[in-house]
Amino acid sequence: MDSILINGQWQETQAERKFQAIDPRSSKHTGDSYPVSGWNDCDSALEAAKNAALELEEVPSSKIADFLECYAKNLELNAEEICNMASLETGLPLQPRLLDVEMPRTTNQLRQAAQASRQDCWRNVVHDEDRNIHSGLGPIGPVLIFGPNNFPLAFNAISGGDFASAIAAGNPVIAKAHPSQPGTSHLLAKQAAAALHETGLPAGMVQMIFDTEPANGLRMVADERLGAVAFTGSRPGGMALKNEADRVGKPIYLEMSSVNPVFLLGSALKRNGDMIDEASGSCLLGAGQFCTCPNLIVVQAGADADTFLNGMTQAFESKPAGTLLSRGVLQSMEKSVKRLREAGVKVMAGGEPVDGDAVQFSNTLLHSSADNFLANPGECQTEAFGPCTLIVTCQDSDQMLQVASSIEGSLTAVVYGEPNDELTGPLTRALRRIAGRVLHNQMPTGVAVSPAMNHGGPFPATGHPGFTAVGIPASMKRFAKLDCYENVSQDFLPAYLQTSSTTE
Amino acid sequence: MDSILINGQWQETQAERKFQAIDPRSSKHTGDSYPVSGWNDCDSALEAAKNAALELEEVPSSKIADFLECYAKNLELNAEEICNMASLETGLPLQPRLLDVEMPRTTNQLRQAAQASRQDCWRNVVHDEDRNIHSGLGPIGPVLIFGPNNFPLAFNAISGGDFASAIAAGNPVIAKAHPSQPGTSHLLAKQAAAALHETGLPAGMVQMIFDTEPANGLRMVADERLGAVAFTGSRPGGMALKNEADRVGKPIYLEMSSVNPVFLLGSALKRNGDMIDEASGSCLLGAGQFCTCPNLIVVQAGADADTFLNGMTQAFESKPAGTLLSRGVLQSMEKSVKRLREAGVKVMAGGEPVDGDAVQFSNTLLHSSADNFLANPGECQTEAFGPCTLIVTCQDSDQMLQVASSIEGSLTAVVYGEPNDELTGPLTRALRRIAGRVLHNQMPTGVAVSPAMNHGGPFPATGHPGFTAVGIPASMKRFAKLDCYENVSQDFLPAYLQTSSTTE
Repeated sequence: MDSILINGQWQETQAERKFQAIDPRSSKHTGDSYPVSGWNDCDSALEAAKNAALELEEVPSSKIADFLECYAKNLELNAEEICNMASLETGLPLQPRLLDVEMPRTTNQLRQAAQASRQDCWRNVVHDEDRNIHSGLGPIGPVLIFGPNNFPLAFNAISGGDFASAIAAGNPVIAKAHPSQPGTSHLLAKQAAAALHETGLPAGMVQMIFDTEPANGLRMVADERLGAVAFTGSRPGGMALKNEADRVGKPIYLEMSSVNPVFLLGSALKRNGDMIDEASGSCLLGAGQFCTCPNLIVVQAGADADTFLNGMTQAFESKPAGTLLSRGVLQSMEKSVKRLREAGVKVMAGGEPVDGDAVQFSNTLLHSSADNFLANPGECQTEAFGPCTLIVTCQDSDQMLQVASSIEGSLTAVVYGEPNDELTGPLTRALRRIAGRVLHNQMPTGVAVSPAMNHGGPFPATGHPGFTAVGIPASMKRFAKLDCYENVSQDFLPAYLQTSSTTE
Repeated sequence: MDSILINGQWQETQAERKFQAIDPRSSKHTGDSYPVSGWNDCDSALEAAKNAALELEEVPSSKIADFLECYAKNLELNAEEICNMASLETGLPLQPRLLDVEMPRTTNQLRQAAQASRQDCWRNVVHDEDRNIHSGLGPIGPVLIFGPNNFPLAFNAISGGDFASAIAAGNPVIAKAHPSQPGTSHLLAKQAAAALHETGLPAGMVQMIFDTEPANGLRMVADERLGAVAFTGSRPGGMALKNEADRVGKPIYLEMSSVNPVFLLGSALKRNGDMIDEASGSCLLGAGQFCTCPNLIVVQAGADADTFLNGMTQAFESKPAGTLLSRGVLQSMEKSVKRLREAGVKVMAGGEPVDGDAVQFSNTLLHSSADNFLANPGECQTEAFGPCTLIVTCQDSDQMLQVASSIEGSLTAVVYGEPNDELTGPLTRALRRIAGRVLHNQMPTGVAVSPAMNHGGPFPATGHPGFTAVGIPASMKRFAKLDCYENVSQDFLPAYLQTSSTTE
């Protein structure tokens, strides 16, 4: 592969070096090699996106919807090829995961975004006819998207939720593919480019580079041609981009680390067998590589808690280790478990990489007293992306509430218990403060693409607690600027603000 | 004055030193002295606000509305005393400005916020009954407000738009009064505290400190008990707070510098006499100390432009210099005009402080070629808060569009011209990118409290182009967190999400 997607064309890259993807099941190269773009490529992408943003101002929402729907259709027609490549590059099972779940979710998101775009329902339009003031959400400008490794389709920078939202809001996109999935991203981008030509949208609406040096990523973030940035990934990566975006006052939407605490009250611990199945299943789903996998379970000391801890230890030990998405995930896991140990946390199960060709880390269960947790809550919440969960045992109700209040911003928080449990109310209120989504008696893995969904939360789970990355049309509002026109005649208003349209 | 408003009480301060306000018309102290709070005071305010935030979760929106309405009524009953003090501390005329315009605007804002709170109309509620997911905007937590100097009532940290929005969204407020208006802020805070007691809201919902060292302000911003920050003022002040808020991932809403460009097309320059009256009036309104005063007027070279420049020079020279809000404003003006001169800008009128007891700077008109402006657009847009406007002369239409694209994020942008002028469309589209509000044939001073208003814009005008500081209910959304509940029974949902309320 010697080209990148710029201005709707596969253009020769000016890359200085190349890289290959690795199959995490065998640790072998998958075959093709892909360019690491230099600044010239990034600059071309920015310039094309800037021009496309201007062209897009004249494009009706319905045409943008046509593109999104055409892209969804193209993906369906090529689903097997794409999902096979995604499985090769991520180690995720082809079926049901990729072909039967993630691909339909991806096309569903694109179609929901298309519908929202066509209906102009997301724009918060307000007309003040008396004063002749009209306002609503308009496009923010070119959006640079950094996709994560854990959803090669549904969160891919060139096909996922951020992509669908940014495009549906009327913005060109520059996708920075995840470097562990270049082949998948390439196949997706081919279909995006085809849809662009089929529907006749501005060529620069979609660009993709396979990879670039971190310095170029930061330079793109700060570039004045860029309107906003979306990032899903690790906290260090997100923070580096955030610092640069903040410096120049550019909106950046981050989805970073989240411990997703689960509080098990006495009534829930009573049904120990079920609870162990449910909890260990959620913790180890996808080898613990879901954004909302519980990394923290909080229980109150007693015989039921002991039974739960023993049962969870056995479950973690007996379940086979999953294949991780990449060697990078494995290396981060090693560092994180070391740091958690240094924070006084005991290893009950696992704690080490698994020998062999496949990239695997043993299912890792950790344990800590609440006293130890509360003495150093920051370190005890060290991000451990993978099959790793810490169980914290509290002495009493007060300590459970203290732990709840010391948890960092999280995507989700769960309370298992009966409605008449005296802690259900106080915990729900305390957890609302630190989490984007509060669940009762249900594990947090599983993020429905519902308009009511919030996949967001306070820092460091994201960069702003008022926005969501999943749930259309709300997720589109991230890529919008509030526009307002005073004493401007209909002819000069954008189409969505015209009350008596003269242009149709 | 030896006390500050903490937890609904005027409590003795632990301040180490005091300060006095100055009447800018005489440069004399106004009388009373006020405490500069140390960290202990700030800490007490944060602790009370944190506790009040928890209490407020149980308070129905209608009670918050009662408080805002009671406060508005109290302000009206004490309007003369408050406005006299505000006039003394700011040099702004008692009538019509303070008593007949700004006070009614202030009480109107409080009442609009009360209505929005009572109706719960701002929360973006979404119910997904099938999946039992419910989401909407809830309070973000205690809000620290730094008020500006130019609207002692309508933007005061203890009575203005930020205050009304933050409270109406269900948050406690810590107001940091502007140090040039301690007496005014004190009189306002007295009425806020009285309204709190009359309506029985949590005592910690309203706090006020008169002043504190900058280091304490930064420490408060970073404190984990605080939910969000609002600041209106200078760019250096705002940036210092922004850096700290960004570092800890806390939402901060800034209203900083804005040049508010006005483009006069040929057809507008033809009516030179009117245009000079209109433009000079808007530039010098309130001694140029409105957020939306035009600091930049762009014209195309020719005989009409020469006539306009001469007419504006005469107008700036002949109008009396206004009194500035404080000596600080005067000192900033001196620095800014010096920097603008160094950027190759010519002084056509004014450019110096006015001798005498009153704090005054001569009406200052500057001129630059577009070539000079485009060679160094950043320096030529140096913030000059006060009676200072730069006229830029372009050679042709292309250069006008280039100037438009090189303007930094601004609250407003204006085009004067006929609909059939070939530049009206392109300029309107270019200016949409850099401004929060685009106006045609109307000066930008005058910000209606309309639900369609946008008093916001891209950085550095504000910190995020998706939000507005004026216009209810939109301004309330700044102080909100997106909450989501999945599989949670009615009893544990906040009142606004209960579909079959059991608590009433």
